[in-house]
Amino acid sequence: MTARLMNFGMVGLGRMGANMARRLAHKQIKIALMNRTFSVTQDLAAETGHSACEDYAVFVKAIEAPRVIWLMLPAGEATATALKALLPLLSPGDLIVDGGNAHYKDDIQHAAYCAEFAIEFADAGVSGGIWGLENGYCIMFGGAKSAAERLRPYLQALAPTPTTGWLHTGPIGSGHYVKMIHNGIEYGMMQAFAEGFAMMQDKSEFSLDLAAIAELWRHGSVVRSWLLDLSADFLAEDQSLDSIQPFVSDSGEGRWTALASVEQGIPTPVMTLALAMRFASQGKNDYAAKILAKMRQGFGGHAIKDSKEK
Amino acid sequence: MTARLMNFGMVGLGRMGANMARRLAHKQIKIALMNRTFSVTQDLAAETGHSACEDYAVFVKAIEAPRVIWLMLPAGEATATALKALLPLLSPGDLIVDGGNAHYKDDIQHAAYCAEFAIEFADAGVSGGIWGLENGYCIMFGGAKSAAERLRPYLQALAPTPTTGWLHTGPIGSGHYVKMIHNGIEYGMMQAFAEGFAMMQDKSEFSLDLAAIAELWRHGSVVRSWLLDLSADFLAEDQSLDSIQPFVSDSGEGRWTALASVEQGIPTPVMTLALAMRFASQGKNDYAAKILAKMRQGFGGHAIKDSKEK
Repeated sequence: MTARLMNFGMVGLGRMGANMARRLAHKQIKIALMNRTFSVTQDLAAETGHSACEDYAVFVKAIEAPRVIWLMLPAGEATATALKALLPLLSPGDLIVDGGNAHYKDDIQHAAYCAEFAIEFADAGVSGGIWGLENGYCIMFGGAKSAAERLRPYLQALAPTPTTGWLHTGPIGSGHYVKMIHNGIEYGMMQAFAEGFAMMQDKSEFSLDLAAIAELWRHGSVVRSWLLDLSADFLAEDQSLDSIQPFVSDSGEGRWTALASVEQGIPTPVMTLALAMRFASQGKNDYAAKILAKMRQGFGGHAIKDSKEK
Repeated sequence: MTARLMNFGMVGLGRMGANMARRLAHKQIKIALMNRTFSVTQDLAAETGHSACEDYAVFVKAIEAPRVIWLMLPAGEATATALKALLPLLSPGDLIVDGGNAHYKDDIQHAAYCAEFAIEFADAGVSGGIWGLENGYCIMFGGAKSAAERLRPYLQALAPTPTTGWLHTGPIGSGHYVKMIHNGIEYGMMQAFAEGFAMMQDKSEFSLDLAAIAELWRHGSVVRSWLLDLSADFLAEDQSLDSIQPFVSDSGEGRWTALASVEQGIPTPVMTLALAMRFASQGKNDYAAKILAKMRQGFGGHAIKDSKEK
């Protein structure tokens, strides 16, 4: 660790946190780094010139008050544990930003918890995936307007440009709420593209070149988008997709969007169905399909496929 | 009409055909124009320098063989009528391209019909909407490779750049098939965005600025896309949307995609459901909703809303 003090510390150096730290380094902003596994911290510090901190006590001391602590941790347990460890060490007026994929209702609880220590809290929804390092991140910031102002130099460095790609969305929780809806939309868009490519792949009489079509649609079509850019890239490498399993994980925000839809009573059939199709891809429709097969056998004597059959 | 001969004629000067003719004019390509209403043809000719033709006989004479006749007409009756009028006037070796939103199975029939006159046929799916004039069109071209080669100078002028945004997709019908799937995907993407914005609009406790959020997401987010660019534009003008009815038309290709899904036996739940939600927006779910209300009244004595109630 260098002796130099700074105002900003990043906790959690996974794919997102590490790349955000790298982007700040590229913009000549030096920060303090903290991660569960110290060797990861040390490697990233060596690469970026940021300060590697071994534990929370060292981390907090390395940062000058008033501090900004950006948490980039998995939602739930990991974030709660970090908050519990950090709060007693911080000084009144410090600001914690949860940049992970937390549920917006947790933000409101976390803000109350932080307030007990006179620590300010804000939430940030961050989109951009692993490409954010290069393209910049899209950041949805919920919290006090003064907190957004305090973060401005960092938000400007993390965003694609100083004036685009970051927004103070509203009060605490609003950043993660908007990010949750963003991800719900993402589920729907991805599913629409996937269905379209599956239809074309099946249409053997036309021998369609899906890589060429994806590349084509990137130019002038109504469906041009970053998701299509990514699809064109991987289809160009291999459009058979023979080497991967038809299994799609879901990481939480799609479920929250579906739950929020029920809670608000606003129909979101496409976003919710896109989530259900991911569940199906995980084999979670298999039992239902077996039940259907048995019913058909029952009423119509229709054949069923034995589990050992090819 | 000028006396100058050329190889290319455009039939149908609606929104798409007229703008495509304008784009060709901007690229210094002169063509012959034909439209049901001659005054429309004359106005566009005056604007572009293209040749206005009053009827099919004049139109065909104005174009030097081997001719390329591009039809930009509504699918169905209008296209069939134009084919019937044109075919006896054309010369063997001329090429008709159907650039309208025809069903790909009609292309195969139309090609057979044209072959009786020794006229070649090709199909072109064209995307880009009213913005194609400025941005260029995305063109999916089905037919013989030699036909695509013959069209190359025109495709290069219509596309965003000479090398991007046009593709020989495969045999006759493949261009419209790929365009149909493109539109199915478009239905799904639009519905996903619409649901997301509706959720945020409903979340009154956060007073979200949907125009600012749409603009935000254009930069660095995973959902960035041309449809989002358009949404940011109209939300910036008025995000209340109070002045318009919640009615969305469907123009045929969404239905064809759903039918093709059933025919191929490939699941397209999101694209098909997005279509169903458009039907619902047209009031076509109203009777079903009334049935549900009456059923609930029947089994549980639940209140129903009288049609005169506010």
